[in-house]
Amino acid sequence: MDALLVEVLRGDRVESQHGGRAVIVDAEGGVLFAAGDVEAPVFTRSTIKALLALPLVEGGAADRLGLDEAELALACASHGGEPTHAATAAAMLAKAGQEPGCLECGAHWPTSRQAAFGLAAAGGVPSVLHNNCSGKHAGFVCAAVDAHQPIAGYVRAEHPVMRQALDAVAASTGARLGEENAGIDGCGIPTHAIPLRALALGFARFGSGAGLAPDRARAAARLRRAVARHPEMVAGTGRFDTLVMQQFGEAVFTKMGAEGVHVAALPALGLGLAVKCDDGAGRAAEVAMAALLARTLPEGGAELEPFVRPVLRNWGGTEVGGLRPAGALSDREARAPQ
Amino acid sequence: MDALLVEVLRGDRVESQHGGRAVIVDAEGGVLFAAGDVEAPVFTRSTIKALLALPLVEGGAADRLGLDEAELALACASHGGEPTHAATAAAMLAKAGQEPGCLECGAHWPTSRQAAFGLAAAGGVPSVLHNNCSGKHAGFVCAAVDAHQPIAGYVRAEHPVMRQALDAVAASTGARLGEENAGIDGCGIPTHAIPLRALALGFARFGSGAGLAPDRARAAARLRRAVARHPEMVAGTGRFDTLVMQQFGEAVFTKMGAEGVHVAALPALGLGLAVKCDDGAGRAAEVAMAALLARTLPEGGAELEPFVRPVLRNWGGTEVGGLRPAGALSDREARAPQ
Repeated sequence: MDALLVEVLRGDRVESQHGGRAVIVDAEGGVLFAAGDVEAPVFTRSTIKALLALPLVEGGAADRLGLDEAELALACASHGGEPTHAATAAAMLAKAGQEPGCLECGAHWPTSRQAAFGLAAAGGVPSVLHNNCSGKHAGFVCAAVDAHQPIAGYVRAEHPVMRQALDAVAASTGARLGEENAGIDGCGIPTHAIPLRALALGFARFGSGAGLAPDRARAAARLRRAVARHPEMVAGTGRFDTLVMQQFGEAVFTKMGAEGVHVAALPALGLGLAVKCDDGAGRAAEVAMAALLARTLPEGGAELEPFVRPVLRNWGGTEVGGLRPAGALSDREARAPQ
Repeated sequence: MDALLVEVLRGDRVESQHGGRAVIVDAEGGVLFAAGDVEAPVFTRSTIKALLALPLVEGGAADRLGLDEAELALACASHGGEPTHAATAAAMLAKAGQEPGCLECGAHWPTSRQAAFGLAAAGGVPSVLHNNCSGKHAGFVCAAVDAHQPIAGYVRAEHPVMRQALDAVAASTGARLGEENAGIDGCGIPTHAIPLRALALGFARFGSGAGLAPDRARAAARLRRAVARHPEMVAGTGRFDTLVMQQFGEAVFTKMGAEGVHVAALPALGLGLAVKCDDGAGRAAEVAMAALLARTLPEGGAELEPFVRPVLRNWGGTEVGGLRPAGALSDREARAPQ
């Protein structure tokens, strides 16, 4: 275990525990808080979707195609496949004159159980629009159409659209994205293992604009605003990122990724936050991120408490335990310098 | 981390890792293999369902009510809520003259996604029969009816049926089950934290009969045979316990529990195996259990390989990584003494 981050309790007893790494940096890369080895690389997975979406906005494609804020938010999303998510992805494609068949993300049942049961009850089957990444992929298609590039193969690292998207990640995080640190993500695009500190730096810059070219800083501000106005697009009903951003508005940008990665940007404070749960558990990454936010945000404590210490109930509704920050994250009085 | 057990790879790179504890014991409690602290207590959760079911058989209630082998297997199950599982639980209750409404486990959607979507598509809603523990609870109801005890409150530690069931666990494992080490399980019954070694000992005895009273040893043999003949009842379509027991028949009894606990009994070898993944991940507990089985079972290697090193594919079907045993479990040549 890198550092103990989160404990899972049954009654008063620790049943399971999660280790990992957590870091808070400013836009110059200064480390304000660190637990575990924050220089070791982690696959960024879906945490970086907002960075991947920067070229779509900064180059003007989003304006030329008339993408609205809900659609820009969906381009940054790992959504639950709810009807509104699928419809919004389809609308983005329609603005580019394309059909869902061009998406290369693969089909899967909505990750929202409610949405999945609803789809099944209506006699439906999952399509590429239900893929949690369909908004990001629709954004890539929009960028390709706008640039008069072929659509097919947009998921590959050598496609001009993907090259531009990955360049934006590299420039924001300062990390090199090459074949030597690449893997394939669940939706088929490349994902890279970069230091957790670099990932946090990318979001300190995304939040504050500091260290980004002026066009890119404006694009980041626009994506942040779009997400803050449509947090329901970025995750979905009852999910962490949506609930936290509904609570805090433009003060907090937060985004999960598969295998226990989570990032946040705090624009007003100029800070970037990143967490990797070693074992890949999203439940622990959420608690760790909530604990980081609670110690960093002035006055944010009460609103965050349900996320910092979620209660576990059994199928009969009885409270049987809960999760709580542990180790370096358990000191709730220790606040990062601001 | 207690001991490194399992690594999750993306491409050739470790993306996540799981620590925990693993132990193999004989029916006298002798430790043949240990990784991590195997004396530290773990909540047994659903791993002990077969031990909880012993009194139902050894006291004759199962025979008096005419429970068949599929029903006995379901009493030991954490099933997927497939139609056959729900129907079998209902049949058990009918033999005791009871309706599903008497079950105190709570209702939840089938854990089998296929079954859940099927239920939703048919316009259904989840009932207590779909609860993964409904077979165990139906067994408790059968025991209560047979003993002319009240049914209501059978989930409580002080109910005669639950007391008998917990006594069987205590006698098999040699562990004390008291209020001081109790929690509430997902289905409402008590669950206790006992040393991992004691949990494994319980299954060495369950598998071999050694150290059990003659009636209890016969009941164990009967439950093992019932499960071996109906492994589809114990978990469900495509799930680890079902697939492994379909492969190995009476040579292997295996059972998962929530929060990354897993046990197995190898009757012919007189061995009990137990795993606890520290972070509660079932995916890692399965790989660890498969690795323990592979090093213990003569000639079992090839059949177990898909469970020892499962491949991860993305939504497009591309192989993107996999899981593998690590640390003390990675030495595939090291076999336990037999």
